[in-house]
Amino acid sequence: MILEGIVTTKNADGTPNIAPMGPIVDAEFHRLILRPFQTSTTFQNLLRTREGVFHVTDNVEMLALAAIGRLEPLPLLTRVPLVDGWSIDDACRWYAFKVISVDLAQPRAEMHAEVVASGRLRDYWGLNRAKHAIVELAILATRLQIVPPAEVVEQLRHYSVLVEKTGGAAERRALALLEDYMRENLPSAAGEEIGVSKSISRG
Amino acid sequence: MILEGIVTTKNADGTPNIAPMGPIVDAEFHRLILRPFQTSTTFQNLLRTREGVFHVTDNVEMLALAAIGRLEPLPLLTRVPLVDGWSIDDACRWYAFKVISVDLAQPRAEMHAEVVASGRLRDYWGLNRAKHAIVELAILATRLQIVPPAEVVEQLRHYSVLVEKTGGAAERRALALLEDYMRENLPSAAGEEIGVSKSISRG
Repeated sequence: MILEGIVTTKNADGTPNIAPMGPIVDAEFHRLILRPFQTSTTFQNLLRTREGVFHVTDNVEMLALAAIGRLEPLPLLTRVPLVDGWSIDDACRWYAFKVISVDLAQPRAEMHAEVVASGRLRDYWGLNRAKHAIVELAILATRLQIVPPAEVVEQLRHYSVLVEKTGGAAERRALALLEDYMRENLPSAAGEEIGVSKSISRG
Repeated sequence: MILEGIVTTKNADGTPNIAPMGPIVDAEFHRLILRPFQTSTTFQNLLRTREGVFHVTDNVEMLALAAIGRLEPLPLLTRVPLVDGWSIDDACRWYAFKVISVDLAQPRAEMHAEVVASGRLRDYWGLNRAKHAIVELAILATRLQIVPPAEVVEQLRHYSVLVEKTGGAAERRALALLEDYMRENLPSAAGEEIGVSKSISRG
């Protein structure tokens, strides 16, 4: 089953890189199949260092910020054992892994990895409709070049209702941020429609 | 923030009742605001006994079965302390609560409750798009009388793609079950359209 989370890797200059990642994970969390796009920083780092740290998180605001490249400043991080890398303090659980095979045949590389260390930091909140609406919108925000603008507007409308109805402050901040990002990065007509939708839903 | 989960209460005949519930929960899980419809069994049980057990779960198949009244046989249950009730063995965490106030002014009663005991059973899986698609479809299945059939068909189409792409066996079983339920409980034209959608998406 696919698990949406956040991966930390080490950049060539020694700094941490933080990015969303949706690996296939086995029930025991022993193995991950990572599928980073070969154009991504995460891919380049994993190809060079062959290790990283994957996180189970319910902090969808952090995931959304990472998805659109606006996670600044970096969140609090802690060094992990056995891998030259970092865990995110606000995650629920972390899994340090080593890459054991790399397949470059597709635009999304397939990297099989083994978990070599892990830790629990806090409980996951639980099922919340707003958190998942933010996950869907964050994924959508990274696909504005390939999803028809009318569908982007329609999905934004659909999911923003769920955030307003069931979310907390962090989910509302993430929604506002993703709306801004989509308005800036969509063709102008569709971007204006997002503006209209926003002013109506927020009075 | 609203947390979608499962609540167990005690029926008048002493048997357990298991139902989905989306209470408002504080960050520390000390208090719950439950909002059961006054027509529901959970409402009647809570009004009579003033106690129950709320569960954080990632078992969306169980949640979907409970939502459409087809959770048979009952899952494994364990007696909890301080409350005359049961925790669900396959949940992630449980919170036994006592109702401290009841407001019957609206069709959905508002019951404030205090958590008096709790337990951790296992980790929550983490963010998975299919799990949340099932939550949305389970909620939709309980609203077939008020949502326009065309919208039901459209949402089923949207969310079923996520289940096929990112779900495990349990999520696929839940999808098939919810599709059957909706086909049986929608006006015939819309029901037939669900049938068509299903045969296309499954080849």
